[in-house]
Amino acid sequence: MTTPALRAVAVICTLSPSPAPSSSQLMAEQLLKELGEHEVSGEQIRLVDHDIKPGVEDDMGAGDAWPDIRRKILAADILLMATPTWLGHMSSVAQRALERLDAELSNTDDEGRPLTYGKVAVVAVVGNEDGAHKITADLYQALNDVGFTVPAQGGVYWNDQAMGSTDYKDLDEIPEAVASQQKTVAANAAHLATALREQPYPPA
Amino acid sequence: MTTPALRAVAVICTLSPSPAPSSSQLMAEQLLKELGEHEVSGEQIRLVDHDIKPGVEDDMGAGDAWPDIRRKILAADILLMATPTWLGHMSSVAQRALERLDAELSNTDDEGRPLTYGKVAVVAVVGNEDGAHKITADLYQALNDVGFTVPAQGGVYWNDQAMGSTDYKDLDEIPEAVASQQKTVAANAAHLATALREQPYPPA
Amino acid sequence: MTTPALRAVAVICTLSPSPAPSSSQLMAEQLLKELGEHEVSGEQIRLVDHDIKPGVEDDMGAGDAWPDIRRKILAADILLMATPTWLGHMSSVAQRALERLDAELSNTDDEGRPLTYGKVAVVAVVGNEDGAHKITADLYQALNDVGFTVPAQGGVYWNDQAMGSTDYKDLDEIPEAVASQQKTVAANAAHLATALREQPYPPA
Amino acid sequence: MTTPALRAVAVICTLSPSPAPSSSQLMAEQLLKELGEHEVSGEQIRLVDHDIKPGVEDDMGAGDAWPDIRRKILAADILLMATPTWLGHMSSVAQRALERLDAELSNTDDEGRPLTYGKVAVVAVVGNEDGAHKITADLYQALNDVGFTVPAQGGVYWNDQAMGSTDYKDLDEIPEAVASQQKTVAANAAHLATALREQPYPPA
Repeated sequence: MTTPALRAVAVICTLSPSPAPSSSQLMAEQLLKELGEHEVSGEQIRLVDHDIKPGVEDDMGAGDAWPDIRRKILAADILLMATPTWLGHMSSVAQRALERLDAELSNTDDEGRPLTYGKVAVVAVVGNEDGAHKITADLYQALNDVGFTVPAQGGVYWNDQAMGSTDYKDLDEIPEAVASQQKTVAANAAHLATALREQPYPPA
Repeated sequence: MTTPALRAVAVICTLSPSPAPSSSQLMAEQLLKELGEHEVSGEQIRLVDHDIKPGVEDDMGAGDAWPDIRRKILAADILLMATPTWLGHMSSVAQRALERLDAELSNTDDEGRPLTYGKVAVVAVVGNEDGAHKITADLYQALNDVGFTVPAQGGVYWNDQAMGSTDYKDLDEIPEAVASQQKTVAANAAHLATALREQPYPPA
Repeated sequence: MTTPALRAVAVICTLSPSPAPSSSQLMAEQLLKELGEHEVSGEQIRLVDHDIKPGVEDDMGAGDAWPDIRRKILAADILLMATPTWLGHMSSVAQRALERLDAELSNTDDEGRPLTYGKVAVVAVVGNEDGAHKITADLYQALNDVGFTVPAQGGVYWNDQAMGSTDYKDLDEIPEAVASQQKTVAANAAHLATALREQPYPPA
Repeated sequence: MTTPALRAVAVICTLSPSPAPSSSQLMAEQLLKELGEHEVSGEQIRLVDHDIKPGVEDDMGAGDAWPDIRRKILAADILLMATPTWLGHMSSVAQRALERLDAELSNTDDEGRPLTYGKVAVVAVVGNEDGAHKITADLYQALNDVGFTVPAQGGVYWNDQAMGSTDYKDLDEIPEAVASQQKTVAANAAHLATALREQPYPPA
């Protein structure tokens, strides 16, 4: 392939600032590694380490960390959102990122397409308790609304049994079903991002 | 207490007709037993064994099994909805019941209150996979919209670890956290139903 | 293009049997017409007119109408799910279809890919009241879990103002925002289905 | 009644800092006024004006504004959560509050009951677009999980037609259906809070 390699950015939505260990970050790093098997280079951003202002504009003014993060997202072909589960919902940090991405609906290219068009979104959800299917649903819908495309079986998750207390980062190894699904997500994301780069969506 | 004993009806939303074993039914029976500890008598209805017509009226005509089920729900003080998890959602059988309950918005007493007012709703969700918090949310909202009151911590659930394959009915015993939560649900439901019987909501 | 034309199947999830007018069907027909502008031929299936048995297998035995419907879905490149909104949720008929599609996780081709891989799913939601974003979320997640790919901005909806009573089928004309979004959905679905036909997902 | 008057606290989850006009705040103020008709005194807190740290403890340390807010919530009988709709979801500010309330599961009284037991939660959702039923569902479930009781028909909302752009604060007057539902929410919340004060939930 003579085209430049694909790039992924993992947006990590843990509530814990660095350097605390994070299950979301661990899962994201594993996915980035799998994406690497498909020639996708990646970087990660732990959102809670940055001062992302509340709002729905792409720049909320003085001190807002979002414009730099946004630049990285727009420079990537694949967006990975990785979030913990709190009360069965995505974290407030993840929802904050979605609110800021809402501004992309107004940012279109010369053909009238949002700048997110052609980009692929995948998701990872971790929790000691239940919530992943619903969070995956909410993320797919929001990311798709603002222009991302979701590849087949584009999510991976882990949670413990009902009312469990084990975190993903506490496991001794990656459960086989999770490892297998990570490979699927990475393969499908890389494939779809390549296809959409070669065949961009038509003008609006 | 000289008032008549409280009554509960468990609406079981498994996709499997009788006599197949059902995790939803098992969980419902355990909850009815706990309600019995609070002098609440109960009965159960396995919806899939009945021909409940699609629609949003309280009687959809010839052959519709809903009017009989509705009578039992309206005669009870406590409604327990028990549903399996399919693709992270409540079953189609559970949603069918909600659609039929939608008609209750138009069925009011002499004071303008829906006939469901003063009744308490609790929920039970089982699954080999994740989904219970979201299903609980969807059930609370729908049941509350049509007039039921939800007691504190009014839901109990069980699901296996991520991508697991164990069903609730396959467990050797009730997990301690589930048993404890069943007691909480039953105690709070019985308490709230008693309080609302003694102190009915004001006229509309 | 020398490849055969793309095919779409619209799965209509109204609770009302034919020949009652249906907002879901109206929206689906409009989308099929827009897909026709992209050389996609389409057909529609009004599920409630068929006896789809409860269950999660691809054939639930005697009298089950699903196997025929399934054949049409598997023969199509694009699946359009169109559902009304009841109590803020997709209809029981829509959830029934998802439950039956759950069986596709076990139906793989010689390369280990579900037969749904390479197919594109889009959604349409109508309601006199609120619920479309959530239903879209639930549909995307379920359809993606079983192997469909969701194109950028792959959903269109209409609902009235809060606590409104107007149905989509009561409108004099297609609201401009809806018409515009129908065109986007059709263009993106046709584009993505073509791209995935030419460049199938890699073997599992 | 010789007992002290009931108290309500409105937690307002707009993304806009004061003094920007806020639809969430407007709806909350209207509800507080209706609660006043039932002898409930109220105050409001606009969360985004305070530095609420990410986390799931009741005190996240230096500079955390939550402990003061928490004190007000625990001193009240009725919690009103008022949130805007962003991408069909509750705001990040609302989810932040839920995460902090998650700590209440561990804060129990001498009888083993969470300090939230006996408190009533109601919700208000506004948006120019669709999302209110789902947000109501997510709020009910989360608030109920941490110990609040939800009265019959305990939510009120407003959103514009599909893809509309009108905000609640732009309306000339309160729509009749909204005004009527505000009265219902207030009456039922005040009634239930009184009943639960007189008849507290049993010990755990």
